[in-house]
Amino acid sequence: MSRATILASRRLRATPYSTRVAQMGASGYTVYNHMWLATMFGGLAQDYAHLKKYAQIWDVSVERQVQIKGPDAHKLACMISARDLTNAKVGRCYYAPICDQHGKIINDPVALRLADDKYWFSIADSDLLLWVQGLALGLNLDVDICEPDVSPLAIQGPMAEDLMVDVFGEEIRDIKFFQFKAFPFEGRMLNIARSGWSKQGGFEIYLDDGSLGEVLWDAIWEKGEPYYLRPGCPNLIERIEGGLLSYGNDMNRENTPLEIGLEKFINLDSDRDFIGKEALIAQRDVGIKKRLMGIEMDGEEMTPVPEPEDVVVDDVKVGILTSAVFSPDYGANIGFVMIAIEHAHDGAVVEVQSAQGTRKGVICEVSSLWSRAQTSE
Amino acid sequence: MSRATILASRRLRATPYSTRVAQMGASGYTVYNHMWLATMFGGLAQDYAHLKKYAQIWDVSVERQVQIKGPDAHKLACMISARDLTNAKVGRCYYAPICDQHGKIINDPVALRLADDKYWFSIADSDLLLWVQGLALGLNLDVDICEPDVSPLAIQGPMAEDLMVDVFGEEIRDIKFFQFKAFPFEGRMLNIARSGWSKQGGFEIYLDDGSLGEVLWDAIWEKGEPYYLRPGCPNLIERIEGGLLSYGNDMNRENTPLEIGLEKFINLDSDRDFIGKEALIAQRDVGIKKRLMGIEMDGEEMTPVPEPEDVVVDDVKVGILTSAVFSPDYGANIGFVMIAIEHAHDGAVVEVQSAQGTRKGVICEVSSLWSRAQTSE
Repeated sequence: MSRATILASRRLRATPYSTRVAQMGASGYTVYNHMWLATMFGGLAQDYAHLKKYAQIWDVSVERQVQIKGPDAHKLACMISARDLTNAKVGRCYYAPICDQHGKIINDPVALRLADDKYWFSIADSDLLLWVQGLALGLNLDVDICEPDVSPLAIQGPMAEDLMVDVFGEEIRDIKFFQFKAFPFEGRMLNIARSGWSKQGGFEIYLDDGSLGEVLWDAIWEKGEPYYLRPGCPNLIERIEGGLLSYGNDMNRENTPLEIGLEKFINLDSDRDFIGKEALIAQRDVGIKKRLMGIEMDGEEMTPVPEPEDVVVDDVKVGILTSAVFSPDYGANIGFVMIAIEHAHDGAVVEVQSAQGTRKGVICEVSSLWSRAQTSE
Repeated sequence: MSRATILASRRLRATPYSTRVAQMGASGYTVYNHMWLATMFGGLAQDYAHLKKYAQIWDVSVERQVQIKGPDAHKLACMISARDLTNAKVGRCYYAPICDQHGKIINDPVALRLADDKYWFSIADSDLLLWVQGLALGLNLDVDICEPDVSPLAIQGPMAEDLMVDVFGEEIRDIKFFQFKAFPFEGRMLNIARSGWSKQGGFEIYLDDGSLGEVLWDAIWEKGEPYYLRPGCPNLIERIEGGLLSYGNDMNRENTPLEIGLEKFINLDSDRDFIGKEALIAQRDVGIKKRLMGIEMDGEEMTPVPEPEDVVVDDVKVGILTSAVFSPDYGANIGFVMIAIEHAHDGAVVEVQSAQGTRKGVICEVSSLWSRAQTSE
């Protein structure tokens, strides 16, 4: 099943921008953190081409915030994060995978340090709130943990910066990558980060009053014409090219950060302790058995893969295809595979047994998909 | 937005029965616990009429199990459950709301005691697994907690019992309501409970090997003709008539069990301790400010309500409509409201300001919807 009709209910939450997203013609949705997320407007390839040239406005309210506040907030943040937050600075964002005690990934949020005693973890698709709250209760920590009324709105694409300057002023240019600053809007101060789930550059506005959703959307929309602003959303083609992994697709509760290639974010050799450290050291010592890699596939243009498909060498299953799609700029089908370590190297040849036909695949590093998609432009 | 096209991805998990559900013509879906759940086949009213007369087969794999096993399993189960499980018997099911320390509902699962040291919590739509795992880690309890490969298949409707006897034998009749027994199937022993998310009677089969999904479905389907067996799913009309509440729709993280009318399941006066007890006693002492009630509404036939709609008295908002639909057997629009306590009584008259028009409503007890839907048959 590649698409289906979904019936609305209150259980699937609307966002502060949902009316605008619908008015502007979202043609496909998914459900993410119990909330609607648009996945397509004009079409995957059309949205992709536009994103790489102009500016887009994305409702990414589904990036819910787990807010940790109080005397033990920093201690708890350091404990749950596989990324070292010991010296995390106020005003910075950190990609911070969260593991259980077995080193398995529970979520891969971006952590924002708002104050010495206050963090937001901007989450992927699992109820991380419950893990953090359960843990803090069990440990009797002095923290208050909640999901605040915060709904990020992203402006992405090469023209995003100029558009943001028109709305919020020249100081937007001072925000460095993965940093955030507060800007005034309608009597509030909104945190704006240079970040977002594309490789095209852009910003995420952390609106902390849902009643202002349409006002914020419209304020940006009105300034959009010179930048060919269109509504958009995280784009499957662009994010595969960019090596951006999706929790639930390319990794899940079965995987550790080492298998996903996240070792660079996790210093296992420092003195600091965090949940999952022992298990990850043990896995590193033994050696990982499988690893996430990029793949290029021949044959006809592939559409999105709804279920993991087998990757085979000499009639033996050696892995699964986790995401895939045809990339116009790359000029081939590209995707990610979770593959046995002996085949997890650049140039390894495999066969992908897909519902869309059996085809040849060549393995590569995740990061190399990006460079080739640029070259061929 | 009442319906939308949803694009498939691996993040939205298929179930062991998904191929059959699609083949048999599911015409609407939702996403529940990161998994596909059909919400309609022939149409809401048609599915409803059939469910109340014959037998239906439902893929309710979305009822994921949180398995708690080990020396501290019983202790942990008693700690998290607002329902008293102190004397829980092996082979019994218990509706067991789970609260945080503030008495707010995290999930409202059915707990099955499988052994002295083993429980399944069959969950509603939130990642309860993470709460229980975080808590157990924080408390350093000696338990193993996981989501096992268990995918319930429900047979519901007045003819469900005879059909189940044809498949599993006469001993099916010995299972009492909210009890379960193990039955052989394909070399395994499957737990079968007399339970299910309808008021029509029926069973839930806890298949614990996903690779047998189609085999189990087909084994039941083949015996179905005498019982007019059709594929089905939890039905909005029938569950509102039946007073079955939906987590995320009729209650959420903002509510306590006392506000939802669940006080009968929670003995606050016993010595036992559980998470949320103090907060619930405090709320009881002060008195609840709002309560979930039934409602009957006049006017044209209502379709499902995607967002909470205002309930008003003398131009003042006094509550929200959480679920609503037209019921053919009741002969009116019926639903649930979360309403200020001064209006939470039988016969109170309110106005519902719905996207489907403003209409008059009369408040009633949740349980009284059921009796009237029977009377008018």
